[in-house]
Amino acid sequence: MLTIAVDAMGGDNAPACVIEGTIQALRESGNRFSVVLIGQAEKVEPLLAEQDTEGLNLRFVHAPEVVTMDDIPAIAVKTKQESSLVRGLKMCKAKEADAYVSAGNTGAQMAASLFVLGRLPGVLRPTIYAYFPRIQEGLTNIVDVGANMDCKPEHLVQFAEMLTIYQRFAAGIEKPVTGLLNIGEEEGKGSEVLKQAYKMLKEADSQGKICFAGNIEGHDILKGNVSIVVCDGLVGNTILKFGESIPEFLGSLLKPALQKLVASGDLDATSAALASSVFKSMFEPFDVEKFGGVPFLGVDGISIVGHGRSSSRAIKNMIFMAEHMIEKKVNAHIAEMLSEE
Amino acid sequence: MLTIAVDAMGGDNAPACVIEGTIQALRESGNRFSVVLIGQAEKVEPLLAEQDTEGLNLRFVHAPEVVTMDDIPAIAVKTKQESSLVRGLKMCKAKEADAYVSAGNTGAQMAASLFVLGRLPGVLRPTIYAYFPRIQEGLTNIVDVGANMDCKPEHLVQFAEMLTIYQRFAAGIEKPVTGLLNIGEEEGKGSEVLKQAYKMLKEADSQGKICFAGNIEGHDILKGNVSIVVCDGLVGNTILKFGESIPEFLGSLLKPALQKLVASGDLDATSAALASSVFKSMFEPFDVEKFGGVPFLGVDGISIVGHGRSSSRAIKNMIFMAEHMIEKKVNAHIAEMLSEE
Repeated sequence: MLTIAVDAMGGDNAPACVIEGTIQALRESGNRFSVVLIGQAEKVEPLLAEQDTEGLNLRFVHAPEVVTMDDIPAIAVKTKQESSLVRGLKMCKAKEADAYVSAGNTGAQMAASLFVLGRLPGVLRPTIYAYFPRIQEGLTNIVDVGANMDCKPEHLVQFAEMLTIYQRFAAGIEKPVTGLLNIGEEEGKGSEVLKQAYKMLKEADSQGKICFAGNIEGHDILKGNVSIVVCDGLVGNTILKFGESIPEFLGSLLKPALQKLVASGDLDATSAALASSVFKSMFEPFDVEKFGGVPFLGVDGISIVGHGRSSSRAIKNMIFMAEHMIEKKVNAHIAEMLSEE
Repeated sequence: MLTIAVDAMGGDNAPACVIEGTIQALRESGNRFSVVLIGQAEKVEPLLAEQDTEGLNLRFVHAPEVVTMDDIPAIAVKTKQESSLVRGLKMCKAKEADAYVSAGNTGAQMAASLFVLGRLPGVLRPTIYAYFPRIQEGLTNIVDVGANMDCKPEHLVQFAEMLTIYQRFAAGIEKPVTGLLNIGEEEGKGSEVLKQAYKMLKEADSQGKICFAGNIEGHDILKGNVSIVVCDGLVGNTILKFGESIPEFLGSLLKPALQKLVASGDLDATSAALASSVFKSMFEPFDVEKFGGVPFLGVDGISIVGHGRSSSRAIKNMIFMAEHMIEKKVNAHIAEMLSEE
């Protein structure tokens, strides 16, 4: 039976919401895997005691230290060896667990995963992606979104290869299509790194490793003609954070626009409230919580990273994602493709 | 009297809309400057003849060739010496005109401006910026948005310095504040280039050349705590194009959201139409046409670049922008600050 280590201390609503999500995952799955919940006994045990965990494959392991959102990743990994983060990953390394799931400090989790688990054979740099909404059905993944700066062409190519494998084997996308984010569509555009990456992506395409659609530009991201957008971590991180700020920005525009229309008599209060609700419902198709998080691709193990704001449903879905990645042998496929290079 | 050279052939609606914008600028200004309209006689003259240009300081110069939107910049500049683009810039170089204004091929205009006008003393790389909406009043400028790839720290610092001068002298912003786009707020974040740029921007701040607020992230752009966002051309270009695609994307979300509410009976057709109009009015505060275009900063002359979709009003405002830049001696201030370095 698979064992998934879950960080009880990770996330803004931890440990309560992690406990709830874990129990939901075990119940919904009919106990088909086991979960080891790791965290501070004094915080987790009282909350666990309030829940009905009778008959669930659930075990608690105490970890006295906690990595907080404010901890500096490289320092936290070294100084907090007794944290749920380091303990959970060490359980994976020792084969006591098959995956680690957390909604805690993303930077610290990446640093610790790399440090404790190491890289898969052939992988130059592990990477992390993000989901983006799109006009076409489905979601687009952007890679890298902040784990890697100053990417060389071969790094960008491996990001595309790893994400292609993930999408093909674990996300059910038959033919994932990759676009290279650039300042123009034509071959020969952009920096030396991008020109070289273009050539190498074309070669990877001709070898059947990926399906490469060429350069794409910023305005193509939301269209969704490709399922994988490859870029340096600075670009991906900026677009991700910019995108996340749009709903708040639009909200700040909507309020005065509605007030103006109500003041001029063109709109009554009921219709204004309705317009607000239409606005909110617009974003419903992009329910990123159904995925819960993203795997840190390229490390020799499974480490799923969740958003700090993760709900219990997001935690549950991260656990299912971990199970799915194990079953689909995503890491074996990555090692197979990349160690050939 | 100042003379402004205007490219009659530039833009999707040229030459009609350029002619209209030019006449509007001359009428509104009470003929306080003169305009030389440059373009193909067979296309421009019949349209000019339809207008009442009696008493206006307007002169037409024939240029047999046209640089199109599809022309490759570097090639167009070399092979189309008899185009309105090259002729107009050569008039500036020969002091027959004080500024050049066009809504044509941006890349070609930048290449030709650099080639014909050269750089101002001390300027390493001329640059181009773009306007961004924000939650706070006003607009934010992002620099560079595609003219420069692989920027070195000293390039990023000069972009901030040139835009600070433009905002201070020509845009009426008393104390322009610069942010460095990065993956985190803390000093020491990001690539080697960004770490070094951070130090140099801090130094420029201590010398009183700019006002530096430190690192900012993607989610800060729309907030508007800074008026200048500095980044490499790839990042700026991607954010710019991504941002421009948002209204279409939102439109694609609004329609099904409204249809769903109408179908469920929660919304009547009249209210649905109203919600659509609210949505459209939301973006009214961000009327980028009132600026018309942006100057290509750092070249030894004034070259104003407009959007291909420029209306006659945008053309008119680009002409006023050119006049303003001349009067405020923006280039002399740039040369003074940058040649000291």
